[in-house]
Amino acid sequence: MTTTGVKRQKQMEKEGALKYPLFAVNEADSKHLFDNRYGTGQSTIDGITRATNILWAGKRVIVCGYGWCGRGVALRARGLGSHVIVTEVDAIRALEAVMDGYEVMPLLDAAKVGDIFITLTGDTSVIDKAHFELLKDGAILANSGHFDVEINISALEALTTAKRRVRPFVDEYTLADGRHLFLLGEGRLINLAAAEGHPASVMDMSFANHALCSEYMVKMGKTLVPKVYSVPKEIDWEIGRLKLLSMGITIDTLTAEQKKYLESWKSGT
Amino acid sequence: MTTTGVKRQKQMEKEGALKYPLFAVNEADSKHLFDNRYGTGQSTIDGITRATNILWAGKRVIVCGYGWCGRGVALRARGLGSHVIVTEVDAIRALEAVMDGYEVMPLLDAAKVGDIFITLTGDTSVIDKAHFELLKDGAILANSGHFDVEINISALEALTTAKRRVRPFVDEYTLADGRHLFLLGEGRLINLAAAEGHPASVMDMSFANHALCSEYMVKMGKTLVPKVYSVPKEIDWEIGRLKLLSMGITIDTLTAEQKKYLESWKSGT
Amino acid sequence: MTTTGVKRQKQMEKEGALKYPLFAVNEADSKHLFDNRYGTGQSTIDGITRATNILWAGKRVIVCGYGWCGRGVALRARGLGSHVIVTEVDAIRALEAVMDGYEVMPLLDAAKVGDIFITLTGDTSVIDKAHFELLKDGAILANSGHFDVEINISALEALTTAKRRVRPFVDEYTLADGRHLFLLGEGRLINLAAAEGHPASVMDMSFANHALCSEYMVKMGKTLVPKVYSVPKEIDWEIGRLKLLSMGITIDTLTAEQKKYLESWKSGT
Amino acid sequence: MTTTGVKRQKQMEKEGALKYPLFAVNEADSKHLFDNRYGTGQSTIDGITRATNILWAGKRVIVCGYGWCGRGVALRARGLGSHVIVTEVDAIRALEAVMDGYEVMPLLDAAKVGDIFITLTGDTSVIDKAHFELLKDGAILANSGHFDVEINISALEALTTAKRRVRPFVDEYTLADGRHLFLLGEGRLINLAAAEGHPASVMDMSFANHALCSEYMVKMGKTLVPKVYSVPKEIDWEIGRLKLLSMGITIDTLTAEQKKYLESWKSGT
Repeated sequence: MTTTGVKRQKQMEKEGALKYPLFAVNEADSKHLFDNRYGTGQSTIDGITRATNILWAGKRVIVCGYGWCGRGVALRARGLGSHVIVTEVDAIRALEAVMDGYEVMPLLDAAKVGDIFITLTGDTSVIDKAHFELLKDGAILANSGHFDVEINISALEALTTAKRRVRPFVDEYTLADGRHLFLLGEGRLINLAAAEGHPASVMDMSFANHALCSEYMVKMGKTLVPKVYSVPKEIDWEIGRLKLLSMGITIDTLTAEQKKYLESWKSGT
Repeated sequence: MTTTGVKRQKQMEKEGALKYPLFAVNEADSKHLFDNRYGTGQSTIDGITRATNILWAGKRVIVCGYGWCGRGVALRARGLGSHVIVTEVDAIRALEAVMDGYEVMPLLDAAKVGDIFITLTGDTSVIDKAHFELLKDGAILANSGHFDVEINISALEALTTAKRRVRPFVDEYTLADGRHLFLLGEGRLINLAAAEGHPASVMDMSFANHALCSEYMVKMGKTLVPKVYSVPKEIDWEIGRLKLLSMGITIDTLTAEQKKYLESWKSGT
Repeated sequence: MTTTGVKRQKQMEKEGALKYPLFAVNEADSKHLFDNRYGTGQSTIDGITRATNILWAGKRVIVCGYGWCGRGVALRARGLGSHVIVTEVDAIRALEAVMDGYEVMPLLDAAKVGDIFITLTGDTSVIDKAHFELLKDGAILANSGHFDVEINISALEALTTAKRRVRPFVDEYTLADGRHLFLLGEGRLINLAAAEGHPASVMDMSFANHALCSEYMVKMGKTLVPKVYSVPKEIDWEIGRLKLLSMGITIDTLTAEQKKYLESWKSGT
Repeated sequence: MTTTGVKRQKQMEKEGALKYPLFAVNEADSKHLFDNRYGTGQSTIDGITRATNILWAGKRVIVCGYGWCGRGVALRARGLGSHVIVTEVDAIRALEAVMDGYEVMPLLDAAKVGDIFITLTGDTSVIDKAHFELLKDGAILANSGHFDVEINISALEALTTAKRRVRPFVDEYTLADGRHLFLLGEGRLINLAAAEGHPASVMDMSFANHALCSEYMVKMGKTLVPKVYSVPKEIDWEIGRLKLLSMGITIDTLTAEQKKYLESWKSGT
């Protein structure tokens, strides 16, 4: 279940439309901190590279949305030498992006300077008519967020006089004013469309959440009601422990003295 | 209130020792995501630089603890060209450090290779007798976490045959086997000891939390009970909004259509 | 012409084996600083990703050789979250790698810890029998340097009991002791074997060198002798100027006062 | 001898004004690749931090000049979370800055958006009247390049109605239009003015060049003429070798087969 999936299930619960118990796997640390960030980060870049074979170094990359997926994509685009600009609707996330060293501006401003636009917001019509009108000739548009609604394709088509597929997964839209825009993967998730999705060594953690939560549901049986449950902390931690083990990495453990110190408010203050 | 402060107050609440209402300011996003990470990150490096004038490029820096403070210090040490090794007791955090590109290992292993050790765990005796015995001649020890208990100074002194101050904030401990260890700022928070603490442009967000929570307490008056309260989301957001405004940065707002889409589970799926 | 190409032509010149004039295009700043670094950096990573779909975050990547190609690959692997270890034979380059924040060690040590090995040295048998014997089960081997000689494949085959192609461009070698090693693209340049080579927007600079040097040779005609010539500085600069222009980037120009100041040794000292 | 020093000595040689032999120590790899880049990079940031205690995260830092010093400062400012903009007069260097992920623009454009300006060009009047007129209220100006001529202080004073020292090394200039500009260290090298200069562990390489070139001059005696000599490659390499040794780092050596391969143009092609 994705970020947008969880939001929707919780809304269903609120409206009494949920018929059976669910686990919000996306909210487990061992899922969203890894799959959404490092998985989407790499595979989105990979999808766009395979579709276009562009050089990332020196490009202006506009990342719409600075949630875990957006953070991952911004990090990887910068890691490949791009100049990254972030757009956001949330002030705290926007500030994080600024202090992480990215430029932050409204999308209407970014539209004029960007070479590549990537949407990861979970919302609809993020790139819309007003933006298409400002884009530079040759701008590339990709979505790695939610279905195919983040880029308003029907608004794009309304401005278009000619359309042709120039490479697999790359559609060139010629606008009435002569500019060319390139839409990747028909606006669907580009990492699934043009690449192989997330690597196995990050999906393992997500699928472990699914597997262990299923086991947990079976064990708990009828005690569970139609509701969006959090992944039990023990399952989350166990996945972290197993993943480290599989990578051959060992870590420290708290001493008895250290455990006691953390629980005390009398010593050391 | 710091991470360790909040832990202690919650323990007091649990034990019925809390006499008046409190706000867990550290848990506000506009506090810990900024002050703890970007503030501690920069000022810790700054304190150690002022104390020692070492070159960070090419040094092996051991960061003990990958909470927000540790993340900040690891990021800044890498940003200055250090090879960063993280030690942790939490598997999820350890995995994050690995996937952020750092080495992760037990402190007993890191002890043998580190040039500079920085503790940011909020716990006691993180660097202890067993580690002192393994450290390289010339290793530098600094704390930027919690009081002066993270480095076990009495254990260090028990191994020491001679001690002298070689620069302000730098004490050289000569061990019986001839090795020299350098303890900075007597194991107290090095950013406060040897530098000027966090820059004003990140403390402003923390102090805004204190100010606005105080105002809120006055307004709410007798309705509040002796308990550790969360900072109201409205206050957290307002601080984000004001900070962006002060930096001259504008961001996007959701359209009516986008708000509705986020709340719906019927469209788009 | 590549780094290794230029070395060979100069050797031919020294031995009197050169029959016609040549231009050392690789030595032009507008070629090796860009094509070798940003081009090879990205396309090598891209080739390995397409061949294996591995997650780079958290992997130990061993980069053999810290010339312009190696620097580029190290930078991009780090940019994708890998822990990069560099091996070198040149002390100055090794020191640069250290101060750029990478680990540096002999390949015999790196062999024991690496997940992915990439050779970019221009030399032969960089990864050899002694290394194969130490590699971890599952290690991945790729070359992005020179022909197919950098990984000693016949030495690998001599240790092998079974070999099969597990994915396009991925050959699994099962050794007598049961370990599995994965050789990519038969040891040939992995960016050409498994991806599309360098992106057009960096090859344009290399080809401009070829084109403008050819034009120059025609102009100079018989005045040129069988020798390896440097690319004329005017051509190098002109390519830089044109490339900036094509990207819509403008830069400053020196004032008359500034030009004079640079040439003078009397003022300002 | 610095970059600007070498330029001047070569000009003196050209004009016949040189009276004795000199070694262009700055051109040794073991000097400029380390001292100028990692030394100036860190100590410039350190000087500005000590002078102002600003937070680097989220600031727009304008780096004037992308030579080795400028590259170092840009790298470190980015490493501390700044958004870095580079200004240059050389197209190749400007392109490198772009592909390293920085923004590049004329200083007249950068003047309008920058929070902190750092000059490292070796030239005069880099920041001049036309720029002062565009700077934002509160902009900080520092030089880490050449004497005190890179920022045109007399042009600044001509626009100023009031001047006061607000912190050690920080002079506030109030302009006629009410804006305040902060000049650090009177426009002199800020790392020397407000910090401790370069750390010992990078100056050791520069001083080793001086020492070993002096020894070489004594040995060569009268055979040397009044001329700017290059540092002999053997000295350069020896310093690299010794520095690695002092850091406890070992590297690989070429096998006989590898040496032969590098010199041959017949095998492998």
